[in-house]
Amino acid sequence: MDIYEQAIELHKKLKGKIATSLRGEVTPETLKLFYSPGVGGAAKYAEADPQKLKEVSWTNNLVAVISDGSAVLGLGDIGPEGAMPVMEGKALLFKHFADIDSVPIVLNVHTADEIVETVKRIAPSFGGINLEDIAAPKCFEIEERLKSELNIPVMHDDQHGTAIVTLAALINASKVTGREIKDMKIVLVGAGAAGVAIAKLLHQYANPDITVVDSKGIVEPSRKDLNQEKVLLMSYSKAHTPGDLAHALKGADVFIGVSKAGLLTPELVKTMAANPIIFAMANPEPEIMPDVAKQAGARIVATGRSDFPNQINNVLGFPGIFRGALDHGVKRITDQHKLAAAEALANLVENPTEDKIIPNPFDPGVVDAISNVIR
Amino acid sequence: MDIYEQAIELHKKLKGKIATSLRGEVTPETLKLFYSPGVGGAAKYAEADPQKLKEVSWTNNLVAVISDGSAVLGLGDIGPEGAMPVMEGKALLFKHFADIDSVPIVLNVHTADEIVETVKRIAPSFGGINLEDIAAPKCFEIEERLKSELNIPVMHDDQHGTAIVTLAALINASKVTGREIKDMKIVLVGAGAAGVAIAKLLHQYANPDITVVDSKGIVEPSRKDLNQEKVLLMSYSKAHTPGDLAHALKGADVFIGVSKAGLLTPELVKTMAANPIIFAMANPEPEIMPDVAKQAGARIVATGRSDFPNQINNVLGFPGIFRGALDHGVKRITDQHKLAAAEALANLVENPTEDKIIPNPFDPGVVDAISNVIR
Repeated sequence: MDIYEQAIELHKKLKGKIATSLRGEVTPETLKLFYSPGVGGAAKYAEADPQKLKEVSWTNNLVAVISDGSAVLGLGDIGPEGAMPVMEGKALLFKHFADIDSVPIVLNVHTADEIVETVKRIAPSFGGINLEDIAAPKCFEIEERLKSELNIPVMHDDQHGTAIVTLAALINASKVTGREIKDMKIVLVGAGAAGVAIAKLLHQYANPDITVVDSKGIVEPSRKDLNQEKVLLMSYSKAHTPGDLAHALKGADVFIGVSKAGLLTPELVKTMAANPIIFAMANPEPEIMPDVAKQAGARIVATGRSDFPNQINNVLGFPGIFRGALDHGVKRITDQHKLAAAEALANLVENPTEDKIIPNPFDPGVVDAISNVIR
Repeated sequence: MDIYEQAIELHKKLKGKIATSLRGEVTPETLKLFYSPGVGGAAKYAEADPQKLKEVSWTNNLVAVISDGSAVLGLGDIGPEGAMPVMEGKALLFKHFADIDSVPIVLNVHTADEIVETVKRIAPSFGGINLEDIAAPKCFEIEERLKSELNIPVMHDDQHGTAIVTLAALINASKVTGREIKDMKIVLVGAGAAGVAIAKLLHQYANPDITVVDSKGIVEPSRKDLNQEKVLLMSYSKAHTPGDLAHALKGADVFIGVSKAGLLTPELVKTMAANPIIFAMANPEPEIMPDVAKQAGARIVATGRSDFPNQINNVLGFPGIFRGALDHGVKRITDQHKLAAAEALANLVENPTEDKIIPNPFDPGVVDAISNVIR
């Protein structure tokens, strides 16, 4: 059986991955308090001050994982039903890693207006909103509008979770290779949700030279097809002339790929600066396999996979971020939070090496280190 | 401390009533199947046939409890935050009594169109929809539209849960008093969600003479203020002339109240037929207290309260109804299901007596008896 067949079998056997459970025993005596008539007291308490609902309901520890299924993993637009097992998986990770109760909600509407409207309508049910696997560029507008219009933390994890973990990895890669991020020439391939957020966060962190490459080539001023986000990314770059990936990569210190399998050849790696850093994060097949990249001269290679060293995995980020936001009453996750989370994550690796620039999700202390800086 | 204060204290101590839990252990090995990359297999499986999502996700056992908070318990329109503790309580009851996973969703929109639209948008996330505490008359339209437009079971429990349990109680009350329901003269006070559904189900069951009384008096042909539902109820009655409750009650065999505290006086009871049956279901204070009703000649008294005999409690109904619907793939809960559920519930009381016409929610076998007939 391949891994897909194994996964289907396990999902069928368990009939899903999460369940609900009870915080207290139901007896004839507690039933009068948990439900009618006593629950009327809790209801009136929350009605009088909706901010106090979290004191008397599970919303204090509850994050919705919300998707329309338009950009799921490497599978693309597979709709709400297709997305559900992935969102339920995310809810499982919230519970396992951060003891956060989490409910997957999939939507069968797909415009930014409809998604924003729907999430706002159900938002009183939750303590936080994790947006997931929503296609770019609508994901940018959806997240911005929800952040400004809701009074609970909202984060699109494909953007910011990925960006935080990538920055953490790059911080430690810079220590191992003795180069400062501010002096790096970085080529970032893929300008979807993750790519845009990675570029923004690296820029915030140290303003390195970041050249973004999408399916049409270098994102530069002569392009007439750029959305608002890409126009912003252009300002992070010293590359102002048209060109392809080969053009962009010459002399680059860092390759960051959130694009597609096999895009980076050994020949291209050889055109980069000495001892380059390669983050080949396409899933499930990276832009270049780690052994091939190393043979071509790469000093450090990271991927999204758990079967190679240096897994850049979102699960290092979102559990601690929402744990901190819920515990500390943070209603808006800011750039400062993301930068602090990346530094906290990087600092967990006491002595970074080529094969250990980032913690493992199962390392103790990951969630605590991050949640502690989300205040 | 009164019961409201006790309930608030317990809710604060437990920080809510439900939580999420895991169906399997998360390890580096299972993580590859529960989440990326293996989960892609389950995602593609559900994408290929959305009906099969329930095989690989928790939706096979998942009911949303959905309310806009417009008619909560006896508290009225207390909004989504006010409603949340009650909906979470309902989710707790689903889990405790029927092992159904359940998620409370409160909405901050209130028109029928908006509620229908929102529920349809999130419906792929669930295996069933329990509508709760939505005001009449919009609740009728909302339920009908959702039943016809969704492919999963939908039930407004304030209507049908109440009706099923009330019919079950009346079946056994008829055995105790030796009167057949078809021959009864019934006065039903209150034409909101519960009242309308009770009248419809009693009519379906045995076509007794049902006179409905609302805050303006008897529902009869000279009334110009009747909504569509009340016009329908009018056809169940032999009373065609204007009048008040006192007028309606003369010679009646049964009083069913889903109205307000203290509405039924001992003097009125004395005008009813000999050995009348009184279901005084207003919450938390019934239309008449049981001892007062008995002194005035009532043969059988039932209320909504657990501190008197014969509690007519929705929790006797909805857990088994959704358990059966989920287990047997029932996509639409019909009148036949409701009638069968009421009979199954009544039959659980082997020897009905004046003080035992209905099971206790904690009696074993209640959920099984009902779920078995929802096929």
